[in-house]
Amino acid sequence: MMTRRLLTTTALALAMAVPALAADPLPSWNDGAAKRAITDFVIRVTTKGGPDFVPPAERIAVFDNDGTLWSEQPMYFQLAFVLDRIKALAPAHPEWKDSQPFKAAIEGDVKALAAGGEHALLKLVMATHANQTTDEFARAVEAWVTTARHPEAGRLYTDMVFQPMLELLAYLRANGFKTFIVSGGGIEFMRVFAERVYGVPPEQVIGSSVKTTFELRDGQPVLVRLPEINFIDDKAGKPVGIQQHIGRRPIAAFGNSDGDLQMLEWTAARKGPSFCLYVRHDDAAREWAYDRESHVGRLDKGLEEAKARGWTIVSMKSDWRTVFP
Amino acid sequence: MMTRRLLTTTALALAMAVPALAADPLPSWNDGAAKRAITDFVIRVTTKGGPDFVPPAERIAVFDNDGTLWSEQPMYFQLAFVLDRIKALAPAHPEWKDSQPFKAAIEGDVKALAAGGEHALLKLVMATHANQTTDEFARAVEAWVTTARHPEAGRLYTDMVFQPMLELLAYLRANGFKTFIVSGGGIEFMRVFAERVYGVPPEQVIGSSVKTTFELRDGQPVLVRLPEINFIDDKAGKPVGIQQHIGRRPIAAFGNSDGDLQMLEWTAARKGPSFCLYVRHDDAAREWAYDRESHVGRLDKGLEEAKARGWTIVSMKSDWRTVFP
Repeated sequence: MMTRRLLTTTALALAMAVPALAADPLPSWNDGAAKRAITDFVIRVTTKGGPDFVPPAERIAVFDNDGTLWSEQPMYFQLAFVLDRIKALAPAHPEWKDSQPFKAAIEGDVKALAAGGEHALLKLVMATHANQTTDEFARAVEAWVTTARHPEAGRLYTDMVFQPMLELLAYLRANGFKTFIVSGGGIEFMRVFAERVYGVPPEQVIGSSVKTTFELRDGQPVLVRLPEINFIDDKAGKPVGIQQHIGRRPIAAFGNSDGDLQMLEWTAARKGPSFCLYVRHDDAAREWAYDRESHVGRLDKGLEEAKARGWTIVSMKSDWRTVFP
Repeated sequence: MMTRRLLTTTALALAMAVPALAADPLPSWNDGAAKRAITDFVIRVTTKGGPDFVPPAERIAVFDNDGTLWSEQPMYFQLAFVLDRIKALAPAHPEWKDSQPFKAAIEGDVKALAAGGEHALLKLVMATHANQTTDEFARAVEAWVTTARHPEAGRLYTDMVFQPMLELLAYLRANGFKTFIVSGGGIEFMRVFAERVYGVPPEQVIGSSVKTTFELRDGQPVLVRLPEINFIDDKAGKPVGIQQHIGRRPIAAFGNSDGDLQMLEWTAARKGPSFCLYVRHDDAAREWAYDRESHVGRLDKGLEEAKARGWTIVSMKSDWRTVFP
């Protein structure tokens, strides 16, 4: 009996000492230059004693959200939330029937909406994102994101995340990276699903925000969202948001549009190794194809700079075996 | 030989299975109600299957810095940095000799400084904290914090941290808590030493800030600190800062002044177990004794509320075996 125990223990000890057969950590990526660039970088910065070793605490990776972790066509998904929410709130706001841009939103009149420009959009955003507590807003997003479906794909929006990017997030974390989302989208919007969908906890989500204020209501403390922009986490705002929230420069940055360019520049300019990657939407069959001329997720200047500086450019069409989970 | 190997393996397996004799994780805390309240809470929220179990991801603990993690007398240490920095920069600013509040700062004329009030202070803060890149500012703080000494104690400021609180930070982290600093002090000021001194990485430091802007200088991206307040992380600002950076409510909050009251209220009002603690400065022999009448770190309203709500009040004099490391 004792001998059997000893043998069992030995077998266990052996099993623990032998590393698991290295399974491909990125099975949805086709073998090619992009995948090799990613794994080469990760091996370089995690090889102890190597010239490019980066301590785990400094392994900060930042990801754009719209167009990088999930789709963004035919409109940013958060804008779909805004329009759906306007319709849901309309019965309590009879005055919206005769007032733009609310009338256009209720009627789904995209042309009239577009004519109103950014100012009209901001009105709709504030009507749906402000004058409520942070808890109330989170509940509204949760209700939407667990039920609303993409108009063309018919899927939940959270099912329109990119499987190869989910694998990349997990691969980086398994190698000691801390993964952050740095998006022009609303910080409190993304936080509702980022942990469940991406494995990114709320404290690692950076985004645009409205001002909030602390109040006591019936003796209970609440945070109230005000109809006033606090921060726009886009373009030159991204490095600012990174510094504000992380306080240390990323070593890897992933984006898909010109709005991510400054984030990639900021990352590339750190002392020591860094990795910058653009996802290129060139797959009209499985997702969408757009770049220089697109109103959503335009990739023009960024593409030139990526080519000039040797950043990794991912072709969804040829580099990704699968797109959605 | 094989038998010896087997025996060795068994011994190893046994050694790994038997937990280390539980050493006191808080040796600088005297046995008493405060220490017991802390350990009772930690055991409650980490006991799997228990009624008050909190998953690790939600074990957020927030700590004020000035007066809670390190001393704050005779003035906030960051103010000592401001005054030292004004003197260091004075040769490059001959105009300061004849202009208040710079003249008073250079001459160490505390009375004249006080007469200038907050407006004068803000001028000095901006002259030392703005119009420089984030890297330049971090280098200035690093140079100061590794050399400047407290005028009365003669020690480095980073040696005037509270040993019992260092143990508390480590104890919470060992129990799956994520520890954050939430301070009225400058976020970029604290980040320079928070990881080395407190074990708190930059991305878990929340504080007051100036606005920053992204620029290319000679083709190199930099973040420039502007002479404009971005956020004041004090009083009702603390829950706002917590929401902005963490996006989830803490389950434990530690402070020492009325400036921390809203942070403790916000924590206490969460659904489920929570823990709030005030450090009371009542040890004139080993540190300082002050509360209701103090201009720095006043504890008045907070003390009443702590008593009324049964929050833990730590007496530095009787609860702490040692104060400084």
